[in-house]
Amino acid sequence: MNMGTGPEAVSVIGLGAMGSALAAALLDRGHPTTVWNRTAHKARPLVERGARAAATPGDAIAASPLVIACVLDHAALHAAVDPYAGTMAGTALVDLTSGSPGQARETAAWAAGHGIDHLDGAIMTTPPGVGRPDMMFLYSGPRAVFDAHRPALAALGDPRYLSADPATASLYDSALLGLMWSALTGWLHGTALVGADAVAATEFTPVAVDWLTAVAGFMTTYAPQIDAGRYPGDDATVDVQIAAIGHLIHAAEERGIDNALPGVLKSAMERARDAGHGGDSHASVIEVLKGAK
Amino acid sequence: MNMGTGPEAVSVIGLGAMGSALAAALLDRGHPTTVWNRTAHKARPLVERGARAAATPGDAIAASPLVIACVLDHAALHAAVDPYAGTMAGTALVDLTSGSPGQARETAAWAAGHGIDHLDGAIMTTPPGVGRPDMMFLYSGPRAVFDAHRPALAALGDPRYLSADPATASLYDSALLGLMWSALTGWLHGTALVGADAVAATEFTPVAVDWLTAVAGFMTTYAPQIDAGRYPGDDATVDVQIAAIGHLIHAAEERGIDNALPGVLKSAMERARDAGHGGDSHASVIEVLKGAK
Repeated sequence: MNMGTGPEAVSVIGLGAMGSALAAALLDRGHPTTVWNRTAHKARPLVERGARAAATPGDAIAASPLVIACVLDHAALHAAVDPYAGTMAGTALVDLTSGSPGQARETAAWAAGHGIDHLDGAIMTTPPGVGRPDMMFLYSGPRAVFDAHRPALAALGDPRYLSADPATASLYDSALLGLMWSALTGWLHGTALVGADAVAATEFTPVAVDWLTAVAGFMTTYAPQIDAGRYPGDDATVDVQIAAIGHLIHAAEERGIDNALPGVLKSAMERARDAGHGGDSHASVIEVLKGAK
Repeated sequence: MNMGTGPEAVSVIGLGAMGSALAAALLDRGHPTTVWNRTAHKARPLVERGARAAATPGDAIAASPLVIACVLDHAALHAAVDPYAGTMAGTALVDLTSGSPGQARETAAWAAGHGIDHLDGAIMTTPPGVGRPDMMFLYSGPRAVFDAHRPALAALGDPRYLSADPATASLYDSALLGLMWSALTGWLHGTALVGADAVAATEFTPVAVDWLTAVAGFMTTYAPQIDAGRYPGDDATVDVQIAAIGHLIHAAEERGIDNALPGVLKSAMERARDAGHGGDSHASVIEVLKGAK
């Protein structure tokens, strides 16, 4: 006999690799979980783990106060839930479907029109990472909706509330993926460079990973410079970095490594220098990336 | 009365911002420290902290079994030490001057010709970070030289021995700086993107810093794929990343952000896809960065 309140009932709409991982993480934490997918056979492994399969999105929506959607795209979301919008007042709809900031705002407006509590979310991990308490999930929309369903969202990973603007999670998603692709491609370029001198990737990478901690420290130092719009170059100036990246480009060239990435980085630094930031910190490069306002 | 062996005597040649920071860190740890600089007044603050000022590089070399050089460039190093090469047999010369892998090999050959114990090193921090035990210093050259002087090198930061090839420290230096510029510029691009929607850099950056931990996890997962030359795309494929970077480019374009960086990242992914890696992990992008062998 359970005198307390048990884990919240949750419905998951969409059982691709990611949706299935979400449902599995909820089941692992004891949430009564209802699942629906356009092609029903995807529900089978989850039903074997204790999920209830809904026959329609409407059945899934009716089964739980919290509905988590993770479908192919924005159009697939609307195709699944629009027919049931009239039944969803008071339901919380957490949309983890990948989409643009504009699409998140559109869904938020649609939800508001039907009295639906809507959060837009972004999953900052791959399906195997779902359920790990250190994997970031970003949310934006009404704070009260986030707070009310936080325990269920914590079953999926580390839930981070960003802002009331529904577009923020999607915008962070793109910004963080951009950081990821930049860092990964920079690391691949470095791995190719040392690899040309017979250093294994597994030898170089632990050093690169430790080095990222120092790089994160530079970001933390530079962030207030950006907000202040002043970039004191008392550690290392753009001029010094331009000289140093020349060494990288030369060493890579000698080893036949593609230099498109360091080329574009150097050109951004040079534009910052030409705009008068030669004696400033590398954070000043943001001035040449930002659009004309 | 000190019955044990005290900290090793060290001489520092070159007292720019970095050389001065090195000497100060040695003094802080109680090393008898002799300093020399081309323009003598740079020694004054260090002498006030207990350093001995040498009148010539030869005096500095004669004063200590370990000589750390950190001068403007390769030519400045030779100008300082060449006249005294005949007196340096058995001296350890640790060269922390910034230079290329080829220059490190040249200095190693010169040192070997005079019976000098030579290490090439790279300082992976800025002068204010010198002396912090978590700041990486990379060394390459004879392992025995590194081991013999490890305690003194540990006064400067976290000493990492890489390889007997004297060029390795310099090559890692370039590779790691390339990773740094890539990550920093990717972070600046993301900061500009969210900044266009009024998110402060100091608000976005802690999330970006946490996210780097996940990115480091991807590197650790991908490194053995690179060594094996096989890139199973079971988490996220190049095809999926190409679609996602399209969203970033679109969102940045709408906000007037410069897209040269994501453009070059996308083009590398597309070349990987065209080479048959569309279903592989992002690590396969290294195949299009590596030179023809």
